[in-house]
Amino acid sequence: MPRRMTIRIFITGGTFDKEYNELKGELFFRDTHVSEILELGRSKVDASVTTLMMMDSLHMTAAHRRIILDNCRMAREDRILVTHGTDTMVETAKFLAKAKLDKTIVLTGAMIPYKFGSSDGLFNMGSALAFVQALPHGVYISMNGKCFDWDNVRKNRDVGEFEEIRRRKSL
Amino acid sequence: MPRRMTIRIFITGGTFDKEYNELKGELFFRDTHVSEILELGRSKVDASVTTLMMMDSLHMTAAHRRIILDNCRMAREDRILVTHGTDTMVETAKFLAKAKLDKTIVLTGAMIPYKFGSSDGLFNMGSALAFVQALPHGVYISMNGKCFDWDNVRKNRDVGEFEEIRRRKSL
Amino acid sequence: MPRRMTIRIFITGGTFDKEYNELKGELFFRDTHVSEILELGRSKVDASVTTLMMMDSLHMTAAHRRIILDNCRMAREDRILVTHGTDTMVETAKFLAKAKLDKTIVLTGAMIPYKFGSSDGLFNMGSALAFVQALPHGVYISMNGKCFDWDNVRKNRDVGEFEEIRRRKSL
Amino acid sequence: MPRRMTIRIFITGGTFDKEYNELKGELFFRDTHVSEILELGRSKVDASVTTLMMMDSLHMTAAHRRIILDNCRMAREDRILVTHGTDTMVETAKFLAKAKLDKTIVLTGAMIPYKFGSSDGLFNMGSALAFVQALPHGVYISMNGKCFDWDNVRKNRDVGEFEEIRRRKSL
Repeated sequence: MPRRMTIRIFITGGTFDKEYNELKGELFFRDTHVSEILELGRSKVDASVTTLMMMDSLHMTAAHRRIILDNCRMAREDRILVTHGTDTMVETAKFLAKAKLDKTIVLTGAMIPYKFGSSDGLFNMGSALAFVQALPHGVYISMNGKCFDWDNVRKNRDVGEFEEIRRRKSL
Repeated sequence: MPRRMTIRIFITGGTFDKEYNELKGELFFRDTHVSEILELGRSKVDASVTTLMMMDSLHMTAAHRRIILDNCRMAREDRILVTHGTDTMVETAKFLAKAKLDKTIVLTGAMIPYKFGSSDGLFNMGSALAFVQALPHGVYISMNGKCFDWDNVRKNRDVGEFEEIRRRKSL
Repeated sequence: MPRRMTIRIFITGGTFDKEYNELKGELFFRDTHVSEILELGRSKVDASVTTLMMMDSLHMTAAHRRIILDNCRMAREDRILVTHGTDTMVETAKFLAKAKLDKTIVLTGAMIPYKFGSSDGLFNMGSALAFVQALPHGVYISMNGKCFDWDNVRKNRDVGEFEEIRRRKSL
Repeated sequence: MPRRMTIRIFITGGTFDKEYNELKGELFFRDTHVSEILELGRSKVDASVTTLMMMDSLHMTAAHRRIILDNCRMAREDRILVTHGTDTMVETAKFLAKAKLDKTIVLTGAMIPYKFGSSDGLFNMGSALAFVQALPHGVYISMNGKCFDWDNVRKNRDVGEFEEIRRRKSL
C-alpha cells in the first residue's frame, strides 16, 4: 500500500446529488451530499471536497469538461475523484485522459439518488476512494465495485450498467 | 487496472453481522448479510461468498484462525476478502501473513451492525472489494476507506478506529 | 375503544407509491408499497388491501372518483382507508362525503415517496389506521398526525401541508 | 373529530430509545429520539416532549410509576402520550388507571430501537398520537396499529406482541 495521500474530490452533480422537491413532485439539484456520504461511511480518508458544478451530465458541454480538466490540472493533489452523472461519464473520462495529466483520476456516480436511501452511492464512494488511492496514474471509471480503464468502457443503457468494450487478454 | 478476477469472500462474523433479538433485547448472530450488502450496493464484481464461522472476534482462538488460513490457502482464487470482528482483526491479519501465501488478502469489518441501518458496512465493503482487486499480493486491513499493511496497524480502542503504528516515510 | 374491526384499504396511487426509474431518471408508478409499509411498521391490524388505480391525483377525473366511491359503498367493511395523492385529496373527500355512506372513511397520503426512505409514509399510515378505527362515521383527511373533517380542510401548496379552513370553536 | 388539542408526551425510555455503543458493542440509553421521530414523520401535531426517566422498563419500581402518575396529574394537558418499555407497560397502565384521572392517556413503545432503522417506532408513534387525540378519557396501550383498554391487554412474550385477554363482545 502506498503512503498516505490527500485526495481531492470534485463534484459535478449527477444522480448522486439529485433531490426530490416535495412541493412540486420533481427531481432537482441543491447541494452535494458527498460530505454527508463520507461521514455516514465513517471515512477517515484525508479528502477535501470542491463543488465545480451541479448538473445533469446530459447537459454537459465541452466548456463544462474544460472546467473539470482545468481543476484537475491545477489541483495540488495527484489523486482526484470526480462525481459525475452516468450518462456522459465515459465522454468526460476521454476528455480528461487526452490531457495526459500525471495523476490518478477516478470518475464515479450513482444510479439512485443518495437522498432516496440509495445504497449504491455509499458503496460506489467506498470503492472509488479505494481505487483512487491504489491505482497508478491514469483515468478510470469506478462503478458497481468494478474499475474500468477510460478507453475500455461503455454504459449499457438497457441494463443501467457499465461494461468493458473488449475482453482483456489474460495476463 | 488488472484483468477481471474472481474474488472469494470468507465470512467470520463480527459486528457486520450482528442482529437485534427483539424478544430478548439482545444482540446475536444468525446469518451473514454480506450478500445482501453486495446486492444493495449493486455490486457487479464476480464474487462468491462462503461462511466459515459466525462469531465475535474476541472469542476467536488459534484453531479458528487456522480454519481461516486453511480456507485462504485452498481457495482457487488469489483475491480474498475476509469479514472479521474488529477487536482481533489485527491478530488474524498477522496469523495469515506469516503463512506467506501468494495472494492478496484483505480483512474488513464494521463498527455498527448492518441491520442497524449501518452505513459503514456498505462503505467498507465497497472499499475492501476495490482494494482486494487493486493491490499486489500481501495481507491488508481495510477500514474507513483506508488500507493498512498487516504489520503497520493497530486498533485504537478509545476512538474505535484503526491507525498506523509508525508514519510511513514519504516516497 | 370499540371492538376489533376489519379495515379495508383502497389504493389509488399518489406520492406514497411513486418510484424512481433508474434507467430513465424519472418518477413512475409500479406496484403499491402499502403492504410493505404495514409489514415494516409491524401492523397487526386486521386489514385487506385492494388497488383500485395507481395514479397521480392531478389526473383524477369524476370517473375515477366514482370508482372509489362505488368500492367504498360495496365494501362489506365500514372502516375504510384510502391512499391518495395530496393534490386533489380534498376534492375526492368531498365527492365521497356527498354520498353520505354510513361508514368511517379516512384519506391519507405522503409528501415523499415511500421508496425514497420516506418516514412520513410510515408515520401517516400509522395515524390514519388509528383514526379510521377510532372515529365515528364520516369522511376525514389524515395527514401529519392530524385529522381533518372533509369540509374543513385545504392543502396549503406553499408549505405542502394541510390546514383547517376555519378555526373550530372551543368545546 | 374533536377540536385541536395540545398533547403532552412523557418519555420513560424503553426500546424506543436504546442505542448501540460501537466502542463496547453494547446497547445503552442516552437521549430520547422522540422529537427526531416526530420531525421525520413530519408531525404537525401540537405536542411538547418531557423526559421523565430513561430506563429499561424491567427496572421500573413503584417509585418510578409514581413519578409518571404525578406528572400525568400535574400536566395541564388532558391528552397524554407515554413512551415506555414493553416489558412492564401493562403494569404501568394499571397503575395509572387506578388514579382515575379525567384524561386520555396512551402508552406506546417499540420492539426495535429507533436508531436501528426501526420502522415500528415511526408507525407506533403515528398510531399512538392519533389514538390519544381521538379516544375518550381513559388509559390505553397502543402497539402495532391497535389500541387496547388498560384492563384487557397482556404482552405475549413468545411472539413479542400485545393481545387482548378476553374477546370483546360484539356490539
